[in-house]
Order: sequence, then structure tokens, then C-alpha cells
Amino acid sequence: MSAKKPGNLIIGQSGGATAVINASLVGAVEAALADQRIGGIYGMHHGIEGLLKEDIIDLGNQPNSVWSQLLHTPSAALGSCRYKLQEHDLERTIEILRRYDIHYMLYIGGNDSADTAHRLAGAARQSNYELQIISIPKTIDNDLPFTDHCPGYGSAARFLAQATQDSTMNTLSIPWHYPVKVIETMGRDAGWLTASAALGKRSESDAPHILLLPEKPFNEQSFLTQVEDIYKQLGFVIVVVAEAMRNEKGNALGSSGQAGMDAFHHPLLSGAAQYLVELVKRELKLRARFDKPGDLQRMSSTHISAPDRDEAYLVGKMGVHALLAGESDKMITLVRDAQAPYHCTTGLAALSEVANVQRLMPDEYLNASKTMVTQAFYDYALPLIGEPLIHHTQLEMTRIRS
Amino acid sequence: MSAKKPGNLIIGQSGGATAVINASLVGAVEAALADQRIGGIYGMHHGIEGLLKEDIIDLGNQPNSVWSQLLHTPSAALGSCRYKLQEHDLERTIEILRRYDIHYMLYIGGNDSADTAHRLAGAARQSNYELQIISIPKTIDNDLPFTDHCPGYGSAARFLAQATQDSTMNTLSIPWHYPVKVIETMGRDAGWLTASAALGKRSESDAPHILLLPEKPFNEQSFLTQVEDIYKQLGFVIVVVAEAMRNEKGNALGSSGQAGMDAFHHPLLSGAAQYLVELVKRELKLRARFDKPGDLQRMSSTHISAPDRDEAYLVGKMGVHALLAGESDKMITLVRDAQAPYHCTTGLAALSEVANVQRLMPDEYLNASKTMVTQAFYDYALPLIGEPLIHHTQLEMTRIRS
Repeated sequence: MSAKKPGNLIIGQSGGATAVINASLVGAVEAALADQRIGGIYGMHHGIEGLLKEDIIDLGNQPNSVWSQLLHTPSAALGSCRYKLQEHDLERTIEILRRYDIHYMLYIGGNDSADTAHRLAGAARQSNYELQIISIPKTIDNDLPFTDHCPGYGSAARFLAQATQDSTMNTLSIPWHYPVKVIETMGRDAGWLTASAALGKRSESDAPHILLLPEKPFNEQSFLTQVEDIYKQLGFVIVVVAEAMRNEKGNALGSSGQAGMDAFHHPLLSGAAQYLVELVKRELKLRARFDKPGDLQRMSSTHISAPDRDEAYLVGKMGVHALLAGESDKMITLVRDAQAPYHCTTGLAALSEVANVQRLMPDEYLNASKTMVTQAFYDYALPLIGEPLIHHTQLEMTRIRS
Repeated sequence: MSAKKPGNLIIGQSGGATAVINASLVGAVEAALADQRIGGIYGMHHGIEGLLKEDIIDLGNQPNSVWSQLLHTPSAALGSCRYKLQEHDLERTIEILRRYDIHYMLYIGGNDSADTAHRLAGAARQSNYELQIISIPKTIDNDLPFTDHCPGYGSAARFLAQATQDSTMNTLSIPWHYPVKVIETMGRDAGWLTASAALGKRSESDAPHILLLPEKPFNEQSFLTQVEDIYKQLGFVIVVVAEAMRNEKGNALGSSGQAGMDAFHHPLLSGAAQYLVELVKRELKLRARFDKPGDLQRMSSTHISAPDRDEAYLVGKMGVHALLAGESDKMITLVRDAQAPYHCTTGLAALSEVANVQRLMPDEYLNASKTMVTQAFYDYALPLIGEPLIHHTQLEMTRIRS
């Protein structure tokens, strides 16, 4: 890269959106605007898929108010994609970048996006095209390796923790009406998101009572036994299940068989909560129902975690700094350098080691039966969801006698 | 009622809980504590069902902090019930009230609770037992007659309006991934709650695009035609459906088997949203998914509407004032006395006319096809959800050319 002539920067957002992915965009654009070594600041409209169509937008001349507002706007303002780069796309991508004089790229995404960025970096090297690429981590699934956690996770975790406490309040008002409630969360092969539903739990009798995490295959009999035991003890049971939960044969719970595969050959899943509700009704004769917050868990504008937003902004900004420091083919990571008070700085990991690797929950975060989290998980995750959750009070139940 | 000796007051909460039903309890207790004509202040633990078991708790000696905290705590702190009083219960209830020297009763609930209160008032008259009963309105369904609206509705409406805008942001980031999204709301025979999902809509192309309200039976063909038309125009479609939606034969959408079988050959007993998702996939070959916020819509502590909470407090307080003014067998109503700025006072309606009557949405609030609301509905409902919703910004999509 010549030190004389400024290079153009292009930024893309990819994969499932989060409540704070735009904060990373804002951090990157603000850092780029502040440095004369960067020329034009461009955006891919719908990620690499848009770039291939030369659907490129101008980020350098947006109204100022856009950036302060985007800091609080969920979802991917640039538009996202779920496109797996084909071999023949690589050469064409380099050709387009060359034509637009783009030598810097930031790609905000999860595992699949890291793979895209890594392959593009390789293709540029092969073509002797000067291109630096940095991947900015983003996923509510929290399953990227080498980073303490992933921007986007804290806000989704805050939603699920508060939602589980709130929804349980309804069960508590009349436990025998629907004694079993199942809450279905997103998440692929790792249980981070499902586990976050426990972050408002203060005692063993508090909800949730059972977490069904992809880290341990579902066993019908032990699940039913556990539900029955808790029901006998408390009169109600709150279960949180990952939508990707599989049984011991590897089959997704309640998958309709019609959902198919996405572009990365991940099966599209639905129906775990429904499956469990039917199972409990049939086998235990207990009334049950489910909440499936769906996209709300990653889009809720009233549950954005302040540290999550701040860190999303930070990794965006540090992406530009890494490019200007000559780095490429790497992902920005979050490095926890203090626990009390919690603080993270950033680091770098080689994309060759990040791409397509999923980080599952470690054993130390799960109890022996792998259906509840440990104190180590609370220590890890509570700082990520920001200010304390709204805690619900109760009346003192002093009886009147006639 | 003798003016000399203070009578004891008992308060109950009944039916489905709301995010602000406790504010009515706080309003009632604070008004009762302030008036020497009321002696003991008691609570039914789980409504009339608890009263029948003499499960009565002391509300007059709670720690002060409880009341300020309960003002912000969703669900029914006294515990709720869904018990229909049997004829033989009436005499026993009067006998218990007599034994506890209870001459004032407030019953916070919806249509069924108004029926319970009305029957109890009649039984007391027949037994020559001095008892005044006032019903305090509460229901997220907003279907009680004679009142402008029902406490609890504004907060659930706020949740659904914001949730629909938030969730749509995910669809907008990559419309072709799941071009059709269905959001399922609660609600019985009236569409108020489903309609509230439109309160964040600012233009015809904004979400939601189709409301499926119980006021008009579901017609498969006209639904599919409408979805297809909107998809062709916008590239995505957001549908909001009432869980109680029925087809023209009177069958609930998603009754057993309609949604097909899961991978284990269990029928999906899905409900309306899952049914519509499968219908759209099968008939239009469009990818679709659903959000079912379930109990979150009535329990979300981050979506409580300030005017809703204030009015819930007000109707609780006015319940005590009505009792002390000698009223009985009536329900407190909300009376809109100013539209700009919005303001409500309270009135009274005879329980004989309230009990078991459901108020559906009037025609003037619905468009010709009854799949979207009119300006008159916005004028009616927007003041109820409180401060403006969080509005999401967008980038200016100015294209770069090479």
C-alpha cells in the first residue's frame, strides 16, 4: 500500500443482524472520517452479494444526524446477506474492488462472514492486488473463537434474561393455569443465548428451571423426569430451549422437514418449543404453552445493553485502526482485561483460525446435568448485559385470621 | 352501612394479568389507607378462589417500599384465578365475608370478573348482608363495554407496536431470506390487541401490512392473494394475526393437524401463526417464519405505558372513593374528556350491563377489507401507549459509480 495516495474503504454487514451491529458501522465510519489516509468511505448494500452487483453506497456524505441515530437503531442499516462466495466470484470481486480503487475492507459478521473475508484476502494476494481486510465480530450466538465474547450477544442476552423473568411473572400469578412454560431462543450449535435466559435467576426455585442447550443432546425421558420433579416441588416449571436442540439421534426437535437448508448448508429449524409443549401435555398431562420471541430477541430496541453497544462501536473503530496499522486477514477480538469493574480492550486473531470455527460453552459454565449454568457463567456473562435487570417485588403474604 | 364503625375492605385480582394491574392495587390501597372509614385492608390470595379457602392476606401492614415497587411490577401480586363462582359458592362467600367483617370489596378484572362481582352483589342483597362491591377494569383485550379503554391495554399495545417495528428491522436487513413474517398476538374475540401492532406504522409500505382480526373470519384465498400482491410490490410482507383467529367455518386456525406433522410424525398443534407460515410456504412457495411473543406482550416491564400505569392507579383509587360514596354493583370506567392533550376522568357503569359483554372494534376503526386500521383508530389508541415509540433511522442510499 502506497503511503502517498489515500485508498478507498468499503464496509459490509453480513449474516443475522443484531441490535448493535450498526454501532460497529458508526465506529468504523467515524474513525475513517478522522484519518486522511482513507479516501472514499463506501458501503456494500447487502454485503458481498451487493458488492458483486456493484450496489455500493456513499457513507462519507451522510447527514450527521444519521450516525448518532444509527448508534441506537437495531439491525443492519447497510442491508445484510447470507451469500456464500463461489470460487468464480473471487476474481470478479477483486476486479470490482480494483475498479473502485478500494484497498481497505471491513466485514462485520460472524463465522461465515469471517470465512468470506479470509477467502477474499487470499484471492487478493493471489492476484497481487493490494487489499487489507479486517473482520469485525458480530453474532448474537456468541460462538466466535479467540474473542472473550461477541458484540450483539449482550443485548440479545439482556432481552432473554429480562423476558424470562417478565414472562414468569404471569405464570406465578396463577401457576395451575399453565404450569409448564417453554421459551424458545435462537442459537445454532452453541448454547450461549439459551443460557443467558438464566441471568435473572437468583435462587434455585427462580425461573428458569431447565435449560436445554445444544451442548447436550436431548433425552426425552430425563427431560420428562426433571419436569415432573420440579412441578411436584414448585407447582410450575419454566423451560428454555434452543431452537437448534437435537435429540440423541441428531434430529432437530420438531423440525417440520420443510425448512430445508440455508446457503451455508445449515439446516433451517423450527418447532423445538412446540414439540416440548406437546410432549409434556401428552406424557405428563400438564397444561403447557410457549413463548417464541423470534426476531425480537435480537432486535429489541428497549433491551440494548450499553456495554454491548459501546463494544460494538469500539471493534468498528479498532477495525479501521488495524487497517491503518497495516493489518490484514484478521478479526478484531475483545479481550477482558479486568473483571471488577469489568473492562475489555481489543486484540487480533488470524482469520485462517477463526473461519468456520464455532466456540461451544465450556464445561465449567454448565452444571453436571448440563441443564443449568454455574456461577462461573454468571461471572462471565452478567457484565455483558449492562445495568441490573428490573427486579420484581412481591407482597408479604401475612395471613389474616377470622 | 353504619357511619360509626369502620368496615373492612378486601381486594382481589382476577383473570389474565397485565403489566399494570398492580398499579390498580396500589391506588386502591393508598386511598383506603387514607380514609378512616375503612378498617382492615385485606387481599384475596388468588382472587375469589382464594377467598373461598379463606386465603386472605394483610395489605394494611406491608413495608412502605412494597407499594412504590409494585407500581412498576407486572403481573398480579395478589395472585389471580380463573374460577367461575358456582351457585353454592355464593352463600359460602357471604358467610366468610361476614365472619371477617368485610363490607367493602374491590375486584380488579375483566368481563368474567365483572360477572363474579355482580353475582356476589346480588347474593349479598338476598342475604341482607351489607356489602358494597366495585369492579376495577383490567384487560389487555380492551373489550369491556362502557369504558373508553381498559387499563392494561396501553402497555400491551405499546409492546406490540414497538415489537412489530423492531422485528421488521430484521426482515428489512435481508428481505429475501424470510420474506414473510407472521407475528401472533393474544386477544379473544376482539381485535384491539392485534390492531395495536399497527401503531408504529407511518406509511402504507411500513409494516405491518396485513392485520388478521377476529372481527372478520379468515378467508384463505383472499389472504394468499393479499400476501402475494404485497410481496410483488415490496419484496416482503409482515402479517399480524390474533391467536383466536377463526376461519369462515368457525374453526380456529392451527387447530390440531392443520399445520401438518413434524419430523417425528406428531401433529403440529401450532396455533394461528404456525398455520399461516405453513400455508404461505405451501401455496406461495415463499419462506416464512413467525414470532409469538406470548406472555411477554402483557408482562414486559420495559414497555409499560406511563398513561396506562397512571390510569390503572386512578381506577384503583376511584374504586375506593366510589365505595365510600355509597356506590355498589358498578364498574369504574374511563371517560375521555379531552383528546389534545389527551385526558381521561372516571365514571361508573352498572355491572348488570357490563358482565359478559364484549366490545368488538367498531367499523370506523377498520378499513373496507378489515385488514388494516383507519386514522380514527390511531387517534383513539396512540395516546394510550404513552411517549412516542423508538423510531428507526435509515442510511441515505446514494450510489457510488466507478
